[in-house]
Amino acid sequence: MGDLASANITISAFEWVPEFARGQVRDLTVRWALEEAGVPYRTLLLHAGSARPESYLSWQPFDQVPAYRDDTGEMFESGAILLHLGRQEERLLPADPATRMQAESWLFAAISSVEPVLRPITLMPLFSGDKEWCAPAVASMLPTAEKRLSRVAEALGDKDWFAGEFSVADIMMAFVLRSFGGQLINDHANLLAFRERALDRPAFARALQAQLDDLTGEPPHA
Amino acid sequence: MGDLASANITISAFEWVPEFARGQVRDLTVRWALEEAGVPYRTLLLHAGSARPESYLSWQPFDQVPAYRDDTGEMFESGAILLHLGRQEERLLPADPATRMQAESWLFAAISSVEPVLRPITLMPLFSGDKEWCAPAVASMLPTAEKRLSRVAEALGDKDWFAGEFSVADIMMAFVLRSFGGQLINDHANLLAFRERALDRPAFARALQAQLDDLTGEPPHA
Repeated sequence: MGDLASANITISAFEWVPEFARGQVRDLTVRWALEEAGVPYRTLLLHAGSARPESYLSWQPFDQVPAYRDDTGEMFESGAILLHLGRQEERLLPADPATRMQAESWLFAAISSVEPVLRPITLMPLFSGDKEWCAPAVASMLPTAEKRLSRVAEALGDKDWFAGEFSVADIMMAFVLRSFGGQLINDHANLLAFRERALDRPAFARALQAQLDDLTGEPPHA
Repeated sequence: MGDLASANITISAFEWVPEFARGQVRDLTVRWALEEAGVPYRTLLLHAGSARPESYLSWQPFDQVPAYRDDTGEMFESGAILLHLGRQEERLLPADPATRMQAESWLFAAISSVEPVLRPITLMPLFSGDKEWCAPAVASMLPTAEKRLSRVAEALGDKDWFAGEFSVADIMMAFVLRSFGGQLINDHANLLAFRERALDRPAFARALQAQLDDLTGEPPHA
């Protein structure tokens, strides 16, 4: 592993996505981490409304973004990429081993314990809100999501960040709460404050602007 | 970070769970990794049907298992624990940096791209199968799950494991496919063969037996 700044990093992103996805695509977390670390990167732009080249699947098997490449190798999955960057940059992951173990735990928690319970509650009404089964299905998932979010709020308590200094765990948790926090997060003042604190960071603003600036493509042909 | 074999590892597990959960609880993946590496560990046994001590939340904020402790620090989230173990043990994560980046990507893929689309399809009928909304809700989620699993099958192709030699990525993917693969996996002979190959490993059998052997607790009082 070399120095990130000279690692020749390329990530994939979109040059066109539908309106609702602008500023929401998952390359945002990787751009954010790179901005925090002050590391330059290139983008390979793809079109969300058109077929990607078949070869892209060997880099990103789910045909999504972001995929990541540096002089060492290739990755996909934003969580894996964040951890890879964090391990090379103290501004992204605490150097103290015990604190790092906590930060890694919280990065996984955001992805595998928080997002999966919040996501369907937010997306199902968006995509299937006109269906009769939608409301009761969402209602059945609410208690678990509420309890999970309460546990997250208790664990954060009055701390600024989830594990020591700001880390990739906070990037992922803020992203999840921003995209999928919905109404549930309003019950927790400390989570609202955490999200605001994270999204107020200049590196987030630069990352968001960079994602939006790359949306230079034409809509797909009807 | 020291040698895993002398790291004084403790994980939390259950001494009692309901019938349907036996052999399915997530400490299984951590036990499996430790068995693969030949690393001894202790268990702290909790009761799934009774309140855990309040202090447990500071170790495992979601009140679940497994939580993990070694001489360096504490963790939760089985994915984070697997990666922590893998980084200290080549039998769990390839030493070659580029192959390791692939293995880490696949570990995250199992947790954040595969499990979340399979899990509700398996669990919703189990817990809400008597509700009218259940069948159409599950039907609405099927196409995404089918497509995702097809991508996983294509990416595996005729390889034995997802990234080089056997790794924690394969442990997590095999666990996810075992618990949530349902009927969908039957469309993919190579994924069925992968799952069988993984679950045939002696370390998996030892891990499963260890989880079952720890179920010595009494059912909760009615």
